[in-house]
Amino acid sequence: MREIGIGLIGGGYMGKAHAVALSAVGAVFDTGLRPRLQTIAASTPESAERYRRAFGFARAARDWQELVRDPAVEAIVIASPQATHRAIAEAAFAEGKPVFCEKPLGASLEDARAMVAAAESSGVPNMVGFNYVRTPATQFVRQLLAEGAIGDVTWFRGEHTEDFLADPSAPANWRCHGRANGCMGDLAPHMVNCALALMGDIAELSARIETIHPTRPGPDGPVTVDNDDHGQMMVRFASGAMGHLYFSRTATGRKMGYAYEIHGTRGAIRFDQEDQNSVWLYRAEGPEATRGFTRILTGPAHPDYLAFCQGPGHGTGYQDQIIIEARDFLRAIETGQSLWPSFRDGLAVWQVIETAFASAGDGRWHPVHHD
Amino acid sequence: MREIGIGLIGGGYMGKAHAVALSAVGAVFDTGLRPRLQTIAASTPESAERYRRAFGFARAARDWQELVRDPAVEAIVIASPQATHRAIAEAAFAEGKPVFCEKPLGASLEDARAMVAAAESSGVPNMVGFNYVRTPATQFVRQLLAEGAIGDVTWFRGEHTEDFLADPSAPANWRCHGRANGCMGDLAPHMVNCALALMGDIAELSARIETIHPTRPGPDGPVTVDNDDHGQMMVRFASGAMGHLYFSRTATGRKMGYAYEIHGTRGAIRFDQEDQNSVWLYRAEGPEATRGFTRILTGPAHPDYLAFCQGPGHGTGYQDQIIIEARDFLRAIETGQSLWPSFRDGLAVWQVIETAFASAGDGRWHPVHHD
Amino acid sequence: MREIGIGLIGGGYMGKAHAVALSAVGAVFDTGLRPRLQTIAASTPESAERYRRAFGFARAARDWQELVRDPAVEAIVIASPQATHRAIAEAAFAEGKPVFCEKPLGASLEDARAMVAAAESSGVPNMVGFNYVRTPATQFVRQLLAEGAIGDVTWFRGEHTEDFLADPSAPANWRCHGRANGCMGDLAPHMVNCALALMGDIAELSARIETIHPTRPGPDGPVTVDNDDHGQMMVRFASGAMGHLYFSRTATGRKMGYAYEIHGTRGAIRFDQEDQNSVWLYRAEGPEATRGFTRILTGPAHPDYLAFCQGPGHGTGYQDQIIIEARDFLRAIETGQSLWPSFRDGLAVWQVIETAFASAGDGRWHPVHHD
Amino acid sequence: MREIGIGLIGGGYMGKAHAVALSAVGAVFDTGLRPRLQTIAASTPESAERYRRAFGFARAARDWQELVRDPAVEAIVIASPQATHRAIAEAAFAEGKPVFCEKPLGASLEDARAMVAAAESSGVPNMVGFNYVRTPATQFVRQLLAEGAIGDVTWFRGEHTEDFLADPSAPANWRCHGRANGCMGDLAPHMVNCALALMGDIAELSARIETIHPTRPGPDGPVTVDNDDHGQMMVRFASGAMGHLYFSRTATGRKMGYAYEIHGTRGAIRFDQEDQNSVWLYRAEGPEATRGFTRILTGPAHPDYLAFCQGPGHGTGYQDQIIIEARDFLRAIETGQSLWPSFRDGLAVWQVIETAFASAGDGRWHPVHHD
Ligand SMILES: NC(=O)C1=CN([C@@H]2O[C@H](COP(=O)(O)OP(=O)(O)OC[C@H]3O[C@@H](n4cnc5c(N)ncnc54)[C@H](O)[C@@H]3O)[C@@H](O)[C@H]2O)C=CC1
Ligand SMILES: NC(=O)C1=CN([C@@H]2O[C@H](COP(=O)(O)OP(=O)(O)OC[C@H]3O[C@@H](n4cnc5c(N)ncnc54)[C@H](O)[C@@H]3O)[C@@H](O)[C@H]2O)C=CC1
Ligand SMILES: NC(=O)C1=CN([C@@H]2O[C@H](COP(=O)(O)OP(=O)(O)OC[C@H]3O[C@@H](n4cnc5c(N)ncnc54)[C@H](O)[C@@H]3O)[C@@H](O)[C@H]2O)C=CC1
Ligand SMILES: NC(=O)C1=CN([C@@H]2O[C@H](COP(=O)(O)OP(=O)(O)OC[C@H]3O[C@@H](n4cnc5c(N)ncnc54)[C@H](O)[C@@H]3O)[C@@H](O)[C@H]2O)C=CC1
Repeated sequence: MREIGIGLIGGGYMGKAHAVALSAVGAVFDTGLRPRLQTIAASTPESAERYRRAFGFARAARDWQELVRDPAVEAIVIASPQATHRAIAEAAFAEGKPVFCEKPLGASLEDARAMVAAAESSGVPNMVGFNYVRTPATQFVRQLLAEGAIGDVTWFRGEHTEDFLADPSAPANWRCHGRANGCMGDLAPHMVNCALALMGDIAELSARIETIHPTRPGPDGPVTVDNDDHGQMMVRFASGAMGHLYFSRTATGRKMGYAYEIHGTRGAIRFDQEDQNSVWLYRAEGPEATRGFTRILTGPAHPDYLAFCQGPGHGTGYQDQIIIEARDFLRAIETGQSLWPSFRDGLAVWQVIETAFASAGDGRWHPVHHD
Repeated sequence: MREIGIGLIGGGYMGKAHAVALSAVGAVFDTGLRPRLQTIAASTPESAERYRRAFGFARAARDWQELVRDPAVEAIVIASPQATHRAIAEAAFAEGKPVFCEKPLGASLEDARAMVAAAESSGVPNMVGFNYVRTPATQFVRQLLAEGAIGDVTWFRGEHTEDFLADPSAPANWRCHGRANGCMGDLAPHMVNCALALMGDIAELSARIETIHPTRPGPDGPVTVDNDDHGQMMVRFASGAMGHLYFSRTATGRKMGYAYEIHGTRGAIRFDQEDQNSVWLYRAEGPEATRGFTRILTGPAHPDYLAFCQGPGHGTGYQDQIIIEARDFLRAIETGQSLWPSFRDGLAVWQVIETAFASAGDGRWHPVHHD
Repeated sequence: MREIGIGLIGGGYMGKAHAVALSAVGAVFDTGLRPRLQTIAASTPESAERYRRAFGFARAARDWQELVRDPAVEAIVIASPQATHRAIAEAAFAEGKPVFCEKPLGASLEDARAMVAAAESSGVPNMVGFNYVRTPATQFVRQLLAEGAIGDVTWFRGEHTEDFLADPSAPANWRCHGRANGCMGDLAPHMVNCALALMGDIAELSARIETIHPTRPGPDGPVTVDNDDHGQMMVRFASGAMGHLYFSRTATGRKMGYAYEIHGTRGAIRFDQEDQNSVWLYRAEGPEATRGFTRILTGPAHPDYLAFCQGPGHGTGYQDQIIIEARDFLRAIETGQSLWPSFRDGLAVWQVIETAFASAGDGRWHPVHHD
Repeated sequence: MREIGIGLIGGGYMGKAHAVALSAVGAVFDTGLRPRLQTIAASTPESAERYRRAFGFARAARDWQELVRDPAVEAIVIASPQATHRAIAEAAFAEGKPVFCEKPLGASLEDARAMVAAAESSGVPNMVGFNYVRTPATQFVRQLLAEGAIGDVTWFRGEHTEDFLADPSAPANWRCHGRANGCMGDLAPHMVNCALALMGDIAELSARIETIHPTRPGPDGPVTVDNDDHGQMMVRFASGAMGHLYFSRTATGRKMGYAYEIHGTRGAIRFDQEDQNSVWLYRAEGPEATRGFTRILTGPAHPDYLAFCQGPGHGTGYQDQIIIEARDFLRAIETGQSLWPSFRDGLAVWQVIETAFASAGDGRWHPVHHD
């Protein structure tokens, strides 16, 4: 059991989640490497100091540059906005320090490509923050699919829908500007990553992407929204299966609509993150009279559950996903091997998103290229 | 209260359903016009006679031609396969007899056009059998949308999914041949009709349609399946809302997956025919702490429920939808005015389906034409 | 196929339901005996005549006495209030005519005893209207239990809860007076019957019964409610299993809360009439990772479903239960053998109810006697 | 922000949960007092050392006595079996150290009485580990009830059901011996506490308690089970409302069946811990046509949610409940005031349990005494 000094950039929504995860992960998973909350940086030294005290870090850095260079910082977690990801990651890799970066990987396909190049030439472990795919439920689904539990998959429908901008009178904020902060840049990556994880590569797609509310109230009158509110794509996976993906930040009533339905020749699976401790499994076997979807509550029999609780059905939550990520990041550092999902997986997501924008532009099917 | 002699063609799945509905409708709805089960026809005189006895018709006709001409038959219900719809309807209209025709309206867009022409030049009432849109639940949803209960609709997702051909080793049958018997011809019409009823016209669409299992076991070895197993389309409604429709006969685990989700600026609605007595309604009003989807059980406060039962939550079923259809057909005859959905609505469905096939052919968005 | 003339007494909630059922049952089940809607009686000749026209009966009787004597009436359906059941049934049996009587069987244990005596000495078929136990779902549960699908049953929890008198400002009506019209007399019989059907005899019980709202608004000021609003009982079945039953007409939010949960040594079953087309089955077999409650949609594989629809998951409703009852009553007449539930089963229910009142009186456990 | 040295006794199921909670609570809630994982004790020095390393404690004590006396230990968390609770608590209070004790409070009513006496004479903060009542969902329900959101409560039904001993062939273990380890001693306290928290005191009850499987396989043949498998009680609350409680460790299919249904004159509430992030609320207001149970997903608008996540519907889990407990324990220490639920609340639970055993003995209603 060895300690490792962690530097965390950002102390907002995800910064806090990572701080908590780093505090808890050792006790939860009895990790070989134990994180020491070493240094935190934020947009100002003042906010960094505030986060330091709240989360229990040893030091607050003046800015991320100082943090990256800090010799007591041995690995870095990026939880600042997408626009900052690339520069931080490049600097960290230059120092030979492993990087965990929140999703999406950078603010554009170009960023993601550069980040993968930097990661791979540095040779140090790197990881992207696709946390929803870490629930015991979705990990279990991945196992089921890998084992062929539902036969050959013929259809995949996924969505990531929330409603935080459903109300047209909600004022414009930073999420209303810039491709990486729109629905496709910000929400879609989670479910695209999930689709790739469960189904493999997307071969081609046809998409439509729209801004439902093109202006929103601003402090001095209407402000133009320059990114998208929702988008959909029909896809064909490399496996041959057909699918559909939908993303929305205007899906009134949906709070965490990370959901999928998968049909195979011998069964089906349904999942909805709003009931994250249940997997619904249908198996086309046994007498018709007793067939149906089984609601399986996650428990010690499912991946990464037991470390949180010995009782089935007792349930894990959002924060626990981040703890599982922390465990994998520590493991990657310990072994020197990146664990899934690495920066390369973050890049694959951007390739799908950019292809969708291209298709939405000309209304045709486009192949998805893989670098 | 006057009696009317009904002629029924077909005594299979839907023929029986209509026979029961005609027996019950008078008592259920205290209709002004009372149906008399006059004459039945089927593919052979023998089967017609068998159905006559089972359902309680006065006479069995040798064939549908005889039935149509039978002077005691004052109105006709077509519950025979799609390939027979057109000739029967044309003959009936030639006799000036009102026609109720099972969905889809004929076996092709061309059939449907001819049937609308015959219906409209005859001037007698005509109706198509889109029964699922008749549940108290979906009728209530239609009201909610008309009243603007969820604000401006921004997204509609519909599906009609079943699994009767999900198993690749299921032997080929007549459903495996002919466009009108494939998934798009046979299942899709119900949900396309629903989408049009709830959302108005579809302006344009982009579709993909596939045969998952291109051969199936036949009596003498593999048989080629020449129609589709599943299909999807991205749509834009004339209202401007975006949507997606999916249809499948290979959706393992789905038995009556006639389901939709609708998002609006002020609320959302969800429905799934597998729980046909519930409508889920979300309203973006009141404190956040008490918002959520409300599961509303159908009851006397909803359309056409009270005639079946005075107690809310006691529930209606499949057969009751057909009884509601029968009530409307009788009312149309009584008033001489076709009631929704008329043959013209059946044609509108075919226009969407054919546009989907065209789009699936070239991978592009196509406008939907309306005659 | 022979016709039989039916006399129906009552044209209200249940009178109409039976009229519809008698109209439809022949076509639904291709019954050997076909009901002819012969004569109807109600509280006045005028209302009887109104019902006659609405439901399509041949004649309206001046009163039930005339109906019972009418030679064209060969069998009788009693759908008038509990207070009338006994006299009608006794008169009908005196004429040697089979009787179907709505639940509860008479207005008291004494009535029920007399009605069983009359039925059994007449030797003609008799039946009680416990319709909820007729759904394909609950019939299927009965089969599962009989087959031992969930092992030895260790616990049964049943309820029949509705909310039609939940609001304390709802005015007093006839349901607020007389033991047979209270919650225990009126609602409880359905679920007591269900418990007996699924679990066998109740050996002993301890109950508490209460009037929540002892007065209600009347036309001239507050009126005293002299019967009960809700009641519960702990029970021990003769099988040894323990259980609990709850009944309420003040269960705000519950519309058709006929629901049960059954645990056995090898599985469990859950059912709720508000989703009457689903049975939830848990089986303690196979790997833990895939165990859970399976939601089985009723379909042709389940009892009495296929006659209503060939498609699984398409669903039956309240009215269909009454049609199934009519089928059994006709079958009983045809064979001369009463089918379950007979008057004796109606009596068994009253024995449980009266024992509950006795226990509620002294706060002790009481054995349930069976005549 | 001040540090406090915590001593933890036990490193099993709950010991680990508390170790994780103590690690995370500071960052989650930005607590004024920050726990330092000081000393851990277990049944042997070896296991204590193992836990020390795994959870990151500074020291391992030889036994709990040493831990209690350790001057670096300023507050104590008891997560060892019920039989050890009393002696440890008494020793800790003698040292003037605040105590958090896992449920149930000691191994008997007598233990609980002694522990309350010791706590109250010491004057230091004390708390009992009823964690399920800490979910954002159940805390929200408590608020709703306090505000009268569902009017006057007329009925409460609660259960705590699991199935870890449902299989009769499961071998006997320590849970099969001793009243405090049976279903009533071990599972019931959670839901009894919940009922008291939501509804207030129980005035009287009538109970039945049973051992379903009186012997179980042991290493050398059948072993006698000397405690109970399931139990139920009818209750009357001091408020006048009626209720029912059921507890089972043989409820096949139930994993975390901590569930309740509450009916009031103006609404109703339902909750099931197996879907711990949803509260179902019915309000008897507005038009009948839109009434129903609303599934409210917990979010920042609900108690103690925001500290875990900014997004509604993202969900909390089992471990988070323990973190909330830790926050309250720290707050109690900081202010010197015990927070609910204190030892006195733990005693109130035992009073209900013991009254249930008395009632089960003589089959009568018993008043519940409060010291
Ligand atoms: N995995 C998930 O579920 C989620 C991921 N995210 C991702 O996490 C990242 C952060 O998002 P949030 O936490 O929501 O944002 P936030 O606005 O809550 O916090 C951003 C933090 O970054 C810091 N920051 C901003 N610019 C900086 C700079 N130049 N140098 C140092 N620190 C700087 C701010 O001080 C703040 O502490 C984004 O990439 C976002 O896409 C966000 C929410 C959920
Ligand atoms: N609305 C709905 O939910 C459903 C609608 N349908 C539609 O109902 C129609 C009938 O389908 P099913 O009842 O499933 O078929 P089926 O195969 O069960 O019955 C067809 C009936 O038509 C009769 N028939 C066939 N050819 C005939 C001819 N030339 N002349 C007279 N009778 C003839 C047969 O004797 C048989 O009685 C089709 O158009 C189908 O698309 C079918 C199932 C469900
Ligand atoms: N199985 C079920 O789900 C239900 C059963 N019931 C039972 O059905 C029976 C009737 O109840 P509802 O239909 O709700 O009552 P209702 O008040 O709707 O109708 C009662 C009918 O009985 C007639 N009637 C009253 N007194 C009569 C008399 N002396 N002679 C002839 N006719 C008379 C009335 O004219 C009326 O048509 C009751 O025993 C009730 O417990 C009622 C509702 C549901
Ligand atoms: N709040 C909740 O959800 C739950 C509460 N519990 C309660 O937590 C307590 C512990 O139960 P579990 O963690 O399930 O048991 P466990 O068997 O998993 O762990 C018991 C721990 O206590 C230690 N221990 C036993 N005797 C000791 C002694 N004399 N001195 C010092 N340490 C000793 C053992 O070494 C072990 O680490 C019990 O009171 C139980 O009722 C248990 C499970 C769930």
